[in-house]
Amino acid sequence: MCEIDVDDSGATRMPVSETGQTPLLLRTDHDGVATLTLNRPAARNALSLSLLEALRDAFAGLAEDRSVRAVVLAAAGPAFCAGHDLKEMTGYRREADRGAKRFEELFALCSAVMMAIPALPQPVIAAVEGVATAAGCQLVASCDLAVAGAQARFATPGVQIGLFCSTPMVALSRNLSRKAAMRMLLTADMAEADEAQRLGLVNDVVEAGGALPAAQALAAGIAARSPYTVRVGKRAFYEQLEMPLADAYAHAGRVMLENMLARAAEEGIGAFLSRKGR
Amino acid sequence: MCEIDVDDSGATRMPVSETGQTPLLLRTDHDGVATLTLNRPAARNALSLSLLEALRDAFAGLAEDRSVRAVVLAAAGPAFCAGHDLKEMTGYRREADRGAKRFEELFALCSAVMMAIPALPQPVIAAVEGVATAAGCQLVASCDLAVAGAQARFATPGVQIGLFCSTPMVALSRNLSRKAAMRMLLTADMAEADEAQRLGLVNDVVEAGGALPAAQALAAGIAARSPYTVRVGKRAFYEQLEMPLADAYAHAGRVMLENMLARAAEEGIGAFLSRKGR
Amino acid sequence: MCEIDVDDSGATRMPVSETGQTPLLLRTDHDGVATLTLNRPAARNALSLSLLEALRDAFAGLAEDRSVRAVVLAAAGPAFCAGHDLKEMTGYRREADRGAKRFEELFALCSAVMMAIPALPQPVIAAVEGVATAAGCQLVASCDLAVAGAQARFATPGVQIGLFCSTPMVALSRNLSRKAAMRMLLTADMAEADEAQRLGLVNDVVEAGGALPAAQALAAGIAARSPYTVRVGKRAFYEQLEMPLADAYAHAGRVMLENMLARAAEEGIGAFLSRKGR
Repeated sequence: MCEIDVDDSGATRMPVSETGQTPLLLRTDHDGVATLTLNRPAARNALSLSLLEALRDAFAGLAEDRSVRAVVLAAAGPAFCAGHDLKEMTGYRREADRGAKRFEELFALCSAVMMAIPALPQPVIAAVEGVATAAGCQLVASCDLAVAGAQARFATPGVQIGLFCSTPMVALSRNLSRKAAMRMLLTADMAEADEAQRLGLVNDVVEAGGALPAAQALAAGIAARSPYTVRVGKRAFYEQLEMPLADAYAHAGRVMLENMLARAAEEGIGAFLSRKGR
Repeated sequence: MCEIDVDDSGATRMPVSETGQTPLLLRTDHDGVATLTLNRPAARNALSLSLLEALRDAFAGLAEDRSVRAVVLAAAGPAFCAGHDLKEMTGYRREADRGAKRFEELFALCSAVMMAIPALPQPVIAAVEGVATAAGCQLVASCDLAVAGAQARFATPGVQIGLFCSTPMVALSRNLSRKAAMRMLLTADMAEADEAQRLGLVNDVVEAGGALPAAQALAAGIAARSPYTVRVGKRAFYEQLEMPLADAYAHAGRVMLENMLARAAEEGIGAFLSRKGR
Repeated sequence: MCEIDVDDSGATRMPVSETGQTPLLLRTDHDGVATLTLNRPAARNALSLSLLEALRDAFAGLAEDRSVRAVVLAAAGPAFCAGHDLKEMTGYRREADRGAKRFEELFALCSAVMMAIPALPQPVIAAVEGVATAAGCQLVASCDLAVAGAQARFATPGVQIGLFCSTPMVALSRNLSRKAAMRMLLTADMAEADEAQRLGLVNDVVEAGGALPAAQALAAGIAARSPYTVRVGKRAFYEQLEMPLADAYAHAGRVMLENMLARAAEEGIGAFLSRKGR
């Protein structure tokens, strides 16, 4: 984490850390909403080892931070995220094992970061402007919700360079229908924002440049709810998705009962009924 | 079940039971199509314990009723269904265990009713006008098919009152893509009929007020088919959905073989070939 | 396989085999793309036992054929495929067991053919003009990608003749949302090409008559990639789809690591970085 300036509009000014280095990942908090900003704009926010570590640490911190009720994932510069840092990875090939161990660690870290998003207690909303490709597209697919500016574009183009987007497809194929996911993976074609919305990769398309405030507004709405309720609901969502129907109902029923007995529901329902009764 | 009047247009006139009480759930049968009508319009058809019991009993009766070949689920009054009856539930909090046992029984009953729909031998078609929220939205998601009037609206707004729509999300997340389901669950936003169709929650949108006749026409088409064929097909649909591909094919292959050897297929195929041969 | 003429435009001329019989299935290869053409136009390309055997053998041959990098599945005549050959099947009823054994073998063969498509190392793209019904619709659903001409239409109408499309629904329900699949299965209604695209059954709709060249262009793009990369990606796609999230990531991570260490990725990434560095 780092000191950063946030002006009234919520826009992030480029911070400088104590060591004089620009942090790879920015975090600004505002009224229960934490905005993480990928901050390697010159490298199109490619997910270097250091940036992945920063994301891992940021999610770990957020998981314990009760002051944060919703998270926005945004990016500095014209591109959202270009995926892995191929230049850094290519450097690993000079090692004795041709990089095998480093690649294995990198992919494991990347998958852990992606899985940390559904596992996070708070909902995470991607705010996408520009291109989101390969692991950058996977980041969007891994978020609970996503808002795209009208010029945002999405692709999983690994097949073009001989490296199929195999881990990105785990997230992609859990958002899109089969043939739509296969199309992106096999052709490397860019999906425009409108198409990405039609296919299920993003929820909303807003005017170009408007993704961050739209995502923050969505997050603010969620942050106004009971964090306990949001937390148990989000967790149960992903748990029950992987169960057969009867097991899913048994599990969700237990969650609902516990939720009903919690103070948030007792107060919320009481307030609702007294508003109705007025 | 109860005595009810049905005029020629198929519209349901409000019945009065022998005890002088208006039944919570109406059933009218016409040419193999049973129409169930939620009938607590003043309470926006909220699913009280009694209404859930009436639905459970109605589905149990339909499961054994060979005269019924398709079912329409409709609602009286301007709202389709507002979900659980929060006022009734709040009353349970006065019990020694703060309602724990009653809530547990209620949620178990509600889930049993929802699961009875895919388990029913006959296809069930929701006819939705007005709002369908929380467990009301879940009812629509649980149906095999759904038709909505143009003014119908759908939401899972539990998060607003501190009670996440955890059991509704079991059905919702099996109809919508992940981010679309999450959006409804986390924001409580209303999805208009057109949006609900785009997302997969309803099949057709018709002019406001037209959902019931449209659903009944769809049901009449299904009722004209071999009930044996529809029954084995519907059952196999939900069974194979939860299997890996090879198991699903093995199972569906057994169903298809049995179906091929049944009289319905022998006669149907024979008639088809002789029509073609003419 | 057989001798066939292909003119410069890639169009297939009707071949005559050495025995003077027209083959049921044509294959033309062009620059790494094999086009299979169902060739029973007078029978609307119904999947007779012989045609299913020809498809099984063709896929088995393609699986071993390293010269082929992508496959297009097309059809001769105005219909794509009308499903099973009901006339042939009806003949089986004259056997002592009323055809039970023959039907069982036929359905097993048909399912094996359908499962051979996702199992094939090369991507398979359906090129659909005219109607694709029952097992013909299943063929389209089983392909990795599909392109439809604007007049193409799709249905699973078995319910009309007393034989529910139970095996077709395995593929259909893995492409469409639940209610959309149920609608096609229960009503036998035709889905127009645009609707089929909206529902997820086809990727692209092109002008009537344009499906084959469009599918071949898509295939040519895929054939230009590393076949190793496409092969490992396609295989991993279907494998990971049936796994829980964490298992899917573990599996895809192993695939990605192996891919990264393969020559295709080393060369592809090297070429990419040197293009960027120029």
